[in-house]
Amino acid sequence: MDIEALNNWKFEDIEHSYTERDTMLYALGLGFGEDPNDPKELAYVYEDGLVAAPSMAVILGYPGFWLKDPKTGIDWKKVLHGEQWLEVFKPLPVAGTVIGRTSIDQISDKGEGKGAVLYLSRDIIDAASGETLARVKMSTFCRGDGGFGGENLPGPVPAVLPERAPDHVCDLTTLPRQALIYRLSGDYNPLHADPEVARSVGFDRPILHGLATYGLAGRAVLKSICDYDSSRLVGLDVRFSAPVYPGETVRFEIWEDNKDVRFRATVPERDVLVLNNGAARLA
Amino acid sequence: MDIEALNNWKFEDIEHSYTERDTMLYALGLGFGEDPNDPKELAYVYEDGLVAAPSMAVILGYPGFWLKDPKTGIDWKKVLHGEQWLEVFKPLPVAGTVIGRTSIDQISDKGEGKGAVLYLSRDIIDAASGETLARVKMSTFCRGDGGFGGENLPGPVPAVLPERAPDHVCDLTTLPRQALIYRLSGDYNPLHADPEVARSVGFDRPILHGLATYGLAGRAVLKSICDYDSSRLVGLDVRFSAPVYPGETVRFEIWEDNKDVRFRATVPERDVLVLNNGAARLA
Repeated sequence: MDIEALNNWKFEDIEHSYTERDTMLYALGLGFGEDPNDPKELAYVYEDGLVAAPSMAVILGYPGFWLKDPKTGIDWKKVLHGEQWLEVFKPLPVAGTVIGRTSIDQISDKGEGKGAVLYLSRDIIDAASGETLARVKMSTFCRGDGGFGGENLPGPVPAVLPERAPDHVCDLTTLPRQALIYRLSGDYNPLHADPEVARSVGFDRPILHGLATYGLAGRAVLKSICDYDSSRLVGLDVRFSAPVYPGETVRFEIWEDNKDVRFRATVPERDVLVLNNGAARLA
Repeated sequence: MDIEALNNWKFEDIEHSYTERDTMLYALGLGFGEDPNDPKELAYVYEDGLVAAPSMAVILGYPGFWLKDPKTGIDWKKVLHGEQWLEVFKPLPVAGTVIGRTSIDQISDKGEGKGAVLYLSRDIIDAASGETLARVKMSTFCRGDGGFGGENLPGPVPAVLPERAPDHVCDLTTLPRQALIYRLSGDYNPLHADPEVARSVGFDRPILHGLATYGLAGRAVLKSICDYDSSRLVGLDVRFSAPVYPGETVRFEIWEDNKDVRFRATVPERDVLVLNNGAARLA
């Protein structure tokens, strides 16, 4: 990677207008509406009384796959989405225009042959009021880019999961076509739709978007703990462990400690951990 | 109904721009992508090699629920969608701008207390070339509006189904959330989403859009006979018999006679005929 270029990287503000239809489609991409006769769940996918899933912040004002820009010097084919964090300061409008303002927080050098970790922040700002609605952070593990002479900086400390049995277990089924619905919210990476592309990078078939699995985590917490009250979920952090294949059931094991929620997610049918060190904060 | 007003009714041209995303979302609303690993089915829901489902013509250039206009004099709460016809002259573009040009073909008076039938046509015209891509026709049974002194004109003769056993049986499952996906293609009638609204008009719960069941018929013919080649399906006619509830399986019984296809659809779990006198034409 070109560390000097990255240290001076300037992101343009991304203006993102979205409609109620987009908000409903995002939620359908996460499987909301599975029980369409539950009015509390219906509120995420029906314009009368519509609410936005808090996790929708992660798709707003997205700067695109800028790592692919040759000026970064990053070996973009070797990057992996490591962690995702979200703080929600104000419930997201169900329609409107927001500004996504992205910056690089830090770049950690894990050493030659070990890679580097890039930490990004993005503020989601209401274009009309100027208020910051949410802050989205992510880490990207750049497997091909260590040893640039930087510091091995620590990232945020991952949430620790309790030793006791989980307080809630929430199984969410995905559809074989789940990624095809989810991708209409803006991430058209063919890895999530095209069997040939998926095979060319070593998967049996297309995988679900990491951020769709992330959105499922929000849905699991809303369903299990928040009685679907979207305003209660104000933070959602995860560490990605492995991909989910569309059609699989994702099992969320959830621990409650007042306003601090911990969770992890597995795919029982393959006995694979897919999300680890999950943390949600309740208002 | 105000027969003079209707005889002189002028419809504005409806300009309708749509994107590849809209085309994919329409197909997802019909359940295309159920087997996302079948490349022929995937073509309806993935932008690389995208094709439009021929039945999409019925949602293009739609003039809206104009029957509700008090100037029609129609008792709009008593209208039922009776039949739907479609001729496709040219494969629909996967994105573009079309003009919907609607006209009233005839109004048949069934007599006082018996109702009237309104026959409408809509040409779907490519805005750039001026070519007519498709012609959509429908009949609306106005149960509260007979006896205006008009003629009892016959409508098109319904297709006759063969006596023999069907050549193909195609079961298509719908999701409980199917109507919630389908409605994002433009028909936001709350009857298809809101349990209270559905109950207020005598249904146990929201019903699937008639035109979604119609689109399923196109999908069944494409799957059973056309090897998913969208260009082969150039006509699709049905008579609506009863609504489908989202989550039900719809069974299509299909007869082939060269380029003329006949079909009907039932919901086996309730033993109800939902589409009758179905006809599809193959190129």
